[in-house]
Amino acid sequence: MYKEKLHQAGKILNEQGIDVWLTLVRETAMNSDPILPFISMVDFTALTGIMVMSSGKTIVLAGNNDAEGIRQTEVYDEVITYNGNFKDGLSELLDQYEVRRLAANYSIEDVASDGLSHGLFILLQEIVNSTSSKPEIVSAAPIISKLRGLKTTAEKNLIIEAISTAEHIFQDARHFIKEGITEQEIHQFFTDRMKYYGVQPSWQASQCPGVMLGPKSVPGHNAPTKITACKGDSMDIDFGVLQDGYCSDLQRTYYILDDNEDRASDEVQRAFDTLKEAIRRAAQFMKPGVTGEQADAAARDYVISQGYPSWNYALGHQVGRMAHDGGMILAPKWNRYSSRQVEQPMEAGMVFTLEPGIATSRGYVGIEEMVYVTETGTEFLSSPQQEIYLL
Amino acid sequence: MYKEKLHQAGKILNEQGIDVWLTLVRETAMNSDPILPFISMVDFTALTGIMVMSSGKTIVLAGNNDAEGIRQTEVYDEVITYNGNFKDGLSELLDQYEVRRLAANYSIEDVASDGLSHGLFILLQEIVNSTSSKPEIVSAAPIISKLRGLKTTAEKNLIIEAISTAEHIFQDARHFIKEGITEQEIHQFFTDRMKYYGVQPSWQASQCPGVMLGPKSVPGHNAPTKITACKGDSMDIDFGVLQDGYCSDLQRTYYILDDNEDRASDEVQRAFDTLKEAIRRAAQFMKPGVTGEQADAAARDYVISQGYPSWNYALGHQVGRMAHDGGMILAPKWNRYSSRQVEQPMEAGMVFTLEPGIATSRGYVGIEEMVYVTETGTEFLSSPQQEIYLL
Repeated sequence: MYKEKLHQAGKILNEQGIDVWLTLVRETAMNSDPILPFISMVDFTALTGIMVMSSGKTIVLAGNNDAEGIRQTEVYDEVITYNGNFKDGLSELLDQYEVRRLAANYSIEDVASDGLSHGLFILLQEIVNSTSSKPEIVSAAPIISKLRGLKTTAEKNLIIEAISTAEHIFQDARHFIKEGITEQEIHQFFTDRMKYYGVQPSWQASQCPGVMLGPKSVPGHNAPTKITACKGDSMDIDFGVLQDGYCSDLQRTYYILDDNEDRASDEVQRAFDTLKEAIRRAAQFMKPGVTGEQADAAARDYVISQGYPSWNYALGHQVGRMAHDGGMILAPKWNRYSSRQVEQPMEAGMVFTLEPGIATSRGYVGIEEMVYVTETGTEFLSSPQQEIYLL
Repeated sequence: MYKEKLHQAGKILNEQGIDVWLTLVRETAMNSDPILPFISMVDFTALTGIMVMSSGKTIVLAGNNDAEGIRQTEVYDEVITYNGNFKDGLSELLDQYEVRRLAANYSIEDVASDGLSHGLFILLQEIVNSTSSKPEIVSAAPIISKLRGLKTTAEKNLIIEAISTAEHIFQDARHFIKEGITEQEIHQFFTDRMKYYGVQPSWQASQCPGVMLGPKSVPGHNAPTKITACKGDSMDIDFGVLQDGYCSDLQRTYYILDDNEDRASDEVQRAFDTLKEAIRRAAQFMKPGVTGEQADAAARDYVISQGYPSWNYALGHQVGRMAHDGGMILAPKWNRYSSRQVEQPMEAGMVFTLEPGIATSRGYVGIEEMVYVTETGTEFLSSPQQEIYLL
């Protein structure tokens, strides 16, 4: 897997005319780079440079104490140690390989490509100034965005496994949730089921699952409260699991039937049907070349056309090792998103969530599915929620 | 605990003439700042600024979706949301509080103070340029170093608990290790005992414990091998546990008795006694005002005076939430350490390891103890190893 991703990186460097992609880290147990789990099996204590050359060759410049552990992983072509002086060691390597364009992990817009700390950037500048070739430092965001976004078959299958486990737990919950139960008790139930399945929450445990129960619950990222399920409440549960290094991220809508009801209230049902159709439209519209802004509009315009307000977050984001995996997102051109994030065309191999939502007088209604971009369109990785889960 | 550390921070700002200390983060589940566990109970998705003012007031500028979760923690005086435009929100706050000196988390030397990514540094510069007051951006390293280094009583007690558990496991291992066992089996034993005690390894699981068994084992950070314990081997185990958020980091020397032996070989025993005395000398020498270089020399000069070579790593480092906790270290003025790291005077409340080592023909001999700096000297937090553990 590590070699496969590093090999992928070499090809991307070539496409982009970069001589070397340098990941510069130290004491990674304390302060890591989000790309590290893709390109290293181990943590490092001393200053370490992981280099992918445009030839595809991989070199690690490592401290004495780390080197043996790195060699044991058998991931890199070469592991070179420096004797106390990282600056000279790296400077010599850059000259030896006649590096002219060096990509480093920084980006204003994309957190996943912004793993280089500012202190180490200053150090890198000093090193570059001490070389003869004086390479130009450019952002590695285009490399990292591709590397994270384009899933290998092994990665796609791991995501499908993580989705399957989350879907099992959503189903388990249908037998547990009933009138009188609190958001916190529901959160505890999901937590217990994750333990049972031996998986971790996809994001911060206290907020995974997010439980939005009834009209008083505040949508967004927050911990479950003592709000209690009442008859006629609609509920949105936002949940995913981290399993074997990869994540799922889904939302399902539940409804507590009132006396004499055998289906959800018309208001809730209509919101649900609208979201379902919006997701279907976006998934059908998406294919390589479509931008995030266009995909978002396919769902958002439909929801608005049905008389609902626009939800105040993106239609979707990528999923991978993180629930919110960096780079391209499906969203309007809002201030909080960069133009590169929403104007970039999607490519085959990317995995996105589709997650529109509508507030009703009975509570928040939300559906979140996960799709994989193929050469010609998309395929659903999740099993789309067809009907509200009635309780 | 969070409020206690933030209160401590306010006082440090005042001492150092800083108007505001800003921790700038986003998507912290993916890319965090090592200081965050001290000052926040939750992760953030959107761009977030955690500000400590010199008045002691704490303000968080947060995205809409994060704000409710932050308010629930009741840690900060004020939680302000921005509407999609973080830059304007922060710029207005800096002007409102007439900030002239702003400390941000970057440092070339100290990884623990280098949590600001380079991309967010560029953003911060843009924001500062858009204010009327145009504050100067300075490194928060002196603030963070103090904040991490000076343990509150609650923090010291948690470290003592983590030491106690590790010491129990070191003792348990005396009944398990014997001739014929491999480094990997010893590692597995420690791993099983950590599960039993419900604690995590202090550093990367595959290298915690580090097992250096016999003369062929390579000292340093690497995974255990299939090297097998033979009669007459000396062994150094480097191990610590993470318990309730705080770490221990210790080394103990074991010896596999040969036939007809009832004590370690003279060579191993003499190395052990030398290390024990070196640690005693350093601990007795250390007190507030002593520099890391001076403390290191107290142990190193003694070991060298006994005819041994100087070990090629620091005498000690700080311990806290991480096994290697940032800022000041006890080491010579080597290239790999900055002068600030080794010339800084120690203060009461700091916790250090003392870990000299000597290679012998029977294997590596190492002892690592942990001491707490008091107003007048040091106290041992660990129970110093008095005798080689004979097996």
